[in-house]
Amino acid sequence: MKLNKLRIIPLGGVEEVGKNCTVFEYGNDIIVVDLGIDFPGPDLPGVDYILPDISYLEKNKKRIRGIVITHGHLDHIGAIPYLIDRLGRPPIFATKLTNGLIQNRLEERGLKGQIKLNVLDPARSISCGVFKITPFRVVHNIPDSVGLAIETPVGMVVHTGDFKFDPHPVDQKLAEKGKLARLGRKGVLVLLSDSTNAQLPGKTISEKRVGQVIDSIFRDVRGRIIFTTFSTLISRIQQVIDVAQKYKRKIAIAGLSIKKTTRVAQELGYLNIPANLFIDIRRIKKYPDKQLVILASGAQATERSAMTRIAQGIHREVKIKRGDTVVFSSSAIPGNELAIHKVMNDLIDQGARIIYQPVLGLGVHSSGHGYQEDLKEMLRLVRPKFFIPIEGEHYMQTQHIELAEKTGVKKQNTFMLDNGEVLEIDEAKQARLSGERVVDKILVVEGKKIKVLREDVLKARKKMAESGICVIIIARNRVEVTFRGLSLEGRLVAETRNKVKKLIKKYRGRDKKEPKMKKRLEGSIGDFLLNKISKKPLIIVEIL
Amino acid sequence: MKLNKLRIIPLGGVEEVGKNCTVFEYGNDIIVVDLGIDFPGPDLPGVDYILPDISYLEKNKKRIRGIVITHGHLDHIGAIPYLIDRLGRPPIFATKLTNGLIQNRLEERGLKGQIKLNVLDPARSISCGVFKITPFRVVHNIPDSVGLAIETPVGMVVHTGDFKFDPHPVDQKLAEKGKLARLGRKGVLVLLSDSTNAQLPGKTISEKRVGQVIDSIFRDVRGRIIFTTFSTLISRIQQVIDVAQKYKRKIAIAGLSIKKTTRVAQELGYLNIPANLFIDIRRIKKYPDKQLVILASGAQATERSAMTRIAQGIHREVKIKRGDTVVFSSSAIPGNELAIHKVMNDLIDQGARIIYQPVLGLGVHSSGHGYQEDLKEMLRLVRPKFFIPIEGEHYMQTQHIELAEKTGVKKQNTFMLDNGEVLEIDEAKQARLSGERVVDKILVVEGKKIKVLREDVLKARKKMAESGICVIIIARNRVEVTFRGLSLEGRLVAETRNKVKKLIKKYRGRDKKEPKMKKRLEGSIGDFLLNKISKKPLIIVEIL
Repeated sequence: MKLNKLRIIPLGGVEEVGKNCTVFEYGNDIIVVDLGIDFPGPDLPGVDYILPDISYLEKNKKRIRGIVITHGHLDHIGAIPYLIDRLGRPPIFATKLTNGLIQNRLEERGLKGQIKLNVLDPARSISCGVFKITPFRVVHNIPDSVGLAIETPVGMVVHTGDFKFDPHPVDQKLAEKGKLARLGRKGVLVLLSDSTNAQLPGKTISEKRVGQVIDSIFRDVRGRIIFTTFSTLISRIQQVIDVAQKYKRKIAIAGLSIKKTTRVAQELGYLNIPANLFIDIRRIKKYPDKQLVILASGAQATERSAMTRIAQGIHREVKIKRGDTVVFSSSAIPGNELAIHKVMNDLIDQGARIIYQPVLGLGVHSSGHGYQEDLKEMLRLVRPKFFIPIEGEHYMQTQHIELAEKTGVKKQNTFMLDNGEVLEIDEAKQARLSGERVVDKILVVEGKKIKVLREDVLKARKKMAESGICVIIIARNRVEVTFRGLSLEGRLVAETRNKVKKLIKKYRGRDKKEPKMKKRLEGSIGDFLLNKISKKPLIIVEIL
Repeated sequence: MKLNKLRIIPLGGVEEVGKNCTVFEYGNDIIVVDLGIDFPGPDLPGVDYILPDISYLEKNKKRIRGIVITHGHLDHIGAIPYLIDRLGRPPIFATKLTNGLIQNRLEERGLKGQIKLNVLDPARSISCGVFKITPFRVVHNIPDSVGLAIETPVGMVVHTGDFKFDPHPVDQKLAEKGKLARLGRKGVLVLLSDSTNAQLPGKTISEKRVGQVIDSIFRDVRGRIIFTTFSTLISRIQQVIDVAQKYKRKIAIAGLSIKKTTRVAQELGYLNIPANLFIDIRRIKKYPDKQLVILASGAQATERSAMTRIAQGIHREVKIKRGDTVVFSSSAIPGNELAIHKVMNDLIDQGARIIYQPVLGLGVHSSGHGYQEDLKEMLRLVRPKFFIPIEGEHYMQTQHIELAEKTGVKKQNTFMLDNGEVLEIDEAKQARLSGERVVDKILVVEGKKIKVLREDVLKARKKMAESGICVIIIARNRVEVTFRGLSLEGRLVAETRNKVKKLIKKYRGRDKKEPKMKKRLEGSIGDFLLNKISKKPLIIVEIL
């Protein structure tokens, strides 16, 4: 039995930045930290979101004592609406703002009011089965972010959530270093820490400095300011509110995602918005340019976002004109660079000026994830015996492990886990991999439905995108050939049809079994086309 | 007639970094500077390369007096093998190394020895019709790079090519600032200058500093070093040769592209390789790890490159083992980030350590394109009346124009051109856009053939990648439904077949004209599927 071992299992968030989800298990009790989604790159066409594979939790759902969420970003909360029913609706614990953002997402899936969300007070501990969980405040680029100190029967575990150390956060709520130092002195068994920026030397730029840059932009610009940032970057939005008020500009919001998060954050008291500062986007024409800020969703240039539609000239209320200044207060999430460039070029073509600083951590944006010096500071405060870098691709995690070694963690006590690997720590405080692998598939959302990603389907999609498709229909006395996704050359249809007719004659004498015939034709026509057009389309043969 | 006007027409290289090609025309004479390709992003599935649309040159090919090439990178030479025949094989002028690299590309297209390449000596002027062209040496990350001073009947034009100012280039051949200053003093009418890094403040890092970092890596690493960089970054390869010699390591090359450029560069005297330093990749097992460097192609993680195959564990000679250090001496070309991350993660999973610095211009790589201070220095040397930023997307070009204004160029004398726009300058030194647009299509290479990119084909490819395909065959007494690229849900095939049958009954009475029937069915089935699976696949209906 597993009675006397702590089991730590990342179901997501290692091998990647995204779909964070870590399982802690002892005896009969399980808790889950975070339940996020990941966004697919161009290697996964047709996929909307990627979910953690929670088969292991489904099998053990009766033992789940709670899901604890560190903060309200989609890579930490986004999978809740999709997976909460499969997990038997265990209790969810999150801070006030995080709960508000989870509620937003539940609403979108038609689950409004159906899931009980428990408030996690950063000043109080909660118990979930055998685990006693004490949150500690951290600074991240969304308010109300916490890390978790998890007391287990074999020792203390610290999960940082996403964090950086910033002496001047916008909400002035500092990371609770004192709590961490006390934990460190009492002895921490395991630290799981955010690896996103483990490859970047130095410390993150303070939000205070970013605020100064934003202030100088508002001070100098004469025309309209169109400001875009991550919709959940509520502290950045507060900075915009503050300087807009200072320089007597009204703010109009373009885009549903910023509108929603702003509303929730305001309702729950996380945004301080002066009366009459916000105006309806439909009323912007009533104000002179120099009295306007348009706060727009779409800093990542996603397809239907407000910023993308503005750039394409198809946004109903916001048309770019000469004199507009567009500020990108964001960095590109890897994979989005080309789309962001395109949006910027389109904006410029319509007469806008762009303010953007693509080099990480300079100028008008600061990352919410600690750089190397922040990460080492965390390690030195917590002084763990064992170290697990989380939230990062392997190349970031190895860098993080090097940092841990520099602060005194022994190399053999560091564990770069894959999703689904199980680290067991017994009461003698010995750690080892169990050898299990409880993640074995990729779970995705496609067309609103949850599916297991199939390699053959993905391969067909990529083949069709690269090389098009050729449909061959063989009826009693006809052969029809149809191409899609190919620039046809002259007589290709006719030539392919003739080739098929020849092949039928050649094969029909030998073998009448249809499946074999199909396979043969597909193979031969594939070779024929490769020779003709240097491409092998996906070939579908139907014999009637 | 156009007799008394200089016409400047970028056919590529503005609105983008890639497929550089600029036309200069006066009276009956045309010269072309550079003829490069661009690499497609994920928005152009199925496309191998993008070519400049040279229809205008094809129409005027009798008037082309020469194609002058600034340096040997593919975005400056890559289109020559594809387009030289369409242009009537005009004379090509390029420096010695550049000619060697062009010859390589011609060979790959089966044009070996068929195109005459004239050597451009950086110390001598040439005449092409009315144009007198004087090259000047610049520093870029390939040797033998030049910019061009083009004397025209209306005044002097300076085309920088790609450049940075580096006081310590690897080959010690400095940019010819004296020539530029003299031109500046005599009066330059137009400057066309490289905008790639116009958004980056400061100066580029010197190659000398990069050399020191590489030296320290070779000094400290105990195991094998696998070093990857751009295959044409010959100066970087020289640095590797130098430190390999110093620290007594042999070099083995993995990958055809580095092998080819290294051979050409050595033959022409641009690489200084000590005897017995290079060994065959098949012999690496005979040497201890600490005496080996593997120089591998594939710094951009392209699909079949050596580095990608090494990462995937399918490279025949190079299998990663614990203790290997892989150095990425490169930056990511936008769009390649995810692929590069994947390669790095795969390498780490096999036990390698990675050295990489993703922030531009730090550590183990330096860009070949000048930063803002380099660009301003060029502007101050040349002091042009008119300024055209080239080689950059619009958002880079606008930044470059701001820099030009800071050095004293008047705003109304700066021109951010689109591909195919025509800037005319008359003898009174007045400049204006002619209003023509001589580029109106996207020319691509697909499956080795040159094609005009068709929007409908591209749309079909994207649709199939996102939403799959549904083929419906209606024969006399049968309906066949086939899906590809979709994770099918249970009875979808049967349900779709039934729906089709119902629709046929409904429509057949009304209209027997087949094309209309097809359209109707496609529309109705599309809606039916959207409702069922929240996706609308590409639908092909065939009625037999």
